[in-house]
Formats: sequence, C-alpha cells, structure tokens
Amino acid sequence: MRRGYATGEARKERILAVALLEFAEHGYRGASLARIAARVELSQAGLLHHFRSKERLLVAVLDYRDELDRRRFGPGHDGHDGGAAALRALADVVDHNARVPGLVQLFSVISGEAVTPGHPGHEWARGRYRRLRADVAAALRAGVERGEFRAGLDAEAHADRLIAMMDGLQTQWLIDPGQVDMAAVFRGYVEDLIAALRPA
Amino acid sequence: MRRGYATGEARKERILAVALLEFAEHGYRGASLARIAARVELSQAGLLHHFRSKERLLVAVLDYRDELDRRRFGPGHDGHDGGAAALRALADVVDHNARVPGLVQLFSVISGEAVTPGHPGHEWARGRYRRLRADVAAALRAGVERGEFRAGLDAEAHADRLIAMMDGLQTQWLIDPGQVDMAAVFRGYVEDLIAALRPA
Repeated sequence: MRRGYATGEARKERILAVALLEFAEHGYRGASLARIAARVELSQAGLLHHFRSKERLLVAVLDYRDELDRRRFGPGHDGHDGGAAALRALADVVDHNARVPGLVQLFSVISGEAVTPGHPGHEWARGRYRRLRADVAAALRAGVERGEFRAGLDAEAHADRLIAMMDGLQTQWLIDPGQVDMAAVFRGYVEDLIAALRPA
Repeated sequence: MRRGYATGEARKERILAVALLEFAEHGYRGASLARIAARVELSQAGLLHHFRSKERLLVAVLDYRDELDRRRFGPGHDGHDGGAAALRALADVVDHNARVPGLVQLFSVISGEAVTPGHPGHEWARGRYRRLRADVAAALRAGVERGEFRAGLDAEAHADRLIAMMDGLQTQWLIDPGQVDMAAVFRGYVEDLIAALRPA
C-alpha cells in the first residue's frame, strides 16, 4: 500500500516534469498529449487516468512549478519574516530563474496565452497574481512595522511594481538573453527600492 | 493609377486591422487565415497574394501596431525631446493602452509566444526591445545633458526597468483588470523615478 502510493506519486511527478517541458516548448495549444504519454511510456488513456484532460494537466503543471518555488523561496526561507529580507529573497528567485530558462519559458508562454479569457490558465494566473501581491504587500507592511520602511507607503502599488518588474525582465531576458542581465537589473531595483523606502 | 494605389493601401490596412483582431483572440498558432480572408471578403489565395504567408501577416500586423504607437507617441510627440517629458510620454502610452485592451492582448499573447526560439515573432520582439531600449536610454541621457537627471545614472538599466514595468503591468491588468490600475501604477513609478534621478 505504502509502496504503491510512493510509486504512484513518483509517476505523477515524472508526468508533470515531462509535461512541463512539452508545454514550455510548444505552448498550451501546441502541446501534444500523445507525445507526453509516449515519453512517460503510458498510453493516452493511461495518462488521462491520472490527469483527466489537457487543461487539468496544464493547471497541475503550473501548480507544481509554484510549489517548487515556494519550497525554495517561500515564507520561512532563510528564516526571513518580511521586510527588506523578503524583497532580497525575491531577487534570489530571479537569480535562480536565470539558471532554468526552460521553466521560465513555460511560465512566460502560459502567462502570455492566459491573458485570453477562456484560456485554462486564466484562473490560475489570476489566483497566482492575487496570492503573490498579497504576500509581497504583507512583506512590505512587516518592514514598516519593524521600522525598516517608512510608514504610509502604498504596499499594494509597490507589490504590483515588484511583480511587474520580475515578469517584464523575464520576457526581455528570454527574448534577448545576451542583452539583459535580469538578475542584476532586478537586484538593482530591489536595492534602490529598499533605500528609497527607508524612514527619513 | 493613383486611385488604384489608394484602394490597394486601404485594403491592406483593412486586412491588417482584421488580422490583428484574429491574432489577439486566438494567438498566432490558433489564428485562422480562412477566417481572416472571409471577414475581408477575399479568398485565401487572394489574402496570400497580399501577405505571402501567415508568418509574414503576423509580422506585418505587429509592425502596423508599432507604427500606430509611433505616430501617436514617438519622438517629436508633444514636442518633447527626451528627459522627464519623454518618460511622461511613456506614461501617456500606458494611459492610451488602458483604453484598447484588444490591442494590448495581442501584444501580450504574441510576446509570450515569441520567447520560444523559432516563433515567427521572435525576431520582431527582439528588434522591438532593442529599439525601445535605445530610445528610452537616449531620452534618459538627454535628461542628463539638460541637467534634469543626475550624471552617472545607468541609462540602459533604467531603460530595461521602465520597459519591464510597462510590460509586466500590462500582463497583470489583462489577467485581472479590476485589481490593477496599470496607468496609475506606471505613472507613479515614472514620477518616483524622475524624483529619484534629480541631481542632488
């Protein structure tokens, strides 16, 4: 029983990893369930036994990627609890992303497509933004409470800016990797922001 | 002759406008030449007489959108010649974009897809970023020369940041329009930046 469970989980994770590469390479619309099934040595019916539909597989892949990021950099990572340390942890995420262009490409293709209402990633993308904005805004407020940041800052607007900067730099870097050092540019932004938000 | 030319140009512009909507709605991969041809009352062969292939049509549509933006906000618009006025002109572009979600959606879907090497929009996206970065960096340097901005600023890094902020906020706004006021958040960023770059 225990062993069957572990094998089932391991197989699911392997399917997610393979599907992630397929979506990253071909986008949601161009991705092929047949190719994914073949690579994990399952029939299409066997694959659909685990993930019901292409849409559900996509959402599972996106959740899987978020989960990996959270394990690596989420609240509690490095023991930070908000403030400047949390903003620097975001810069660590970007450092990490600069080493995994395939994953970043998936995210960029899906986010691009997901702006179209009705796209299966739309709800996921909306939920992700709201969660991320809430987390970053909370980190900024924690910094205000500890006196690292000035009172009265607009936490939501700064959260929107930080997330936009990460996403926009990713796009530039994917399109023209040799021209944009996204990790350095983002870290520069974070350090300028920490300095600008310091109490007078 | 003159009249035939004008008619041909008008027809081309009409094809571009219709194709833009089709790409915006379905992405590059999902867009259908047959639907575009039907909407402009041409056969597919007639459509391909004007634009040779789906790829060339896409690139023509993207150039057409850029051209519309340049006419509206390019160098010389409002008589600005760089510096703070040029940054505020970028904020005017975002104000305008907030009123044309369909166009913005096209750009976002294509930019997202275009991170994949081999996508027909890849070269276009790369060229667009390089041109935009050069224009914005030149505007920042013009501000330094006129004494509006402090000497020694990193014009390329600030250009990357400004473009990333515009693109990233667009994505958020498309995914969750009720939550993000992209025009206000971007204008706030621009005004904070102008203040931060002021000579001491």
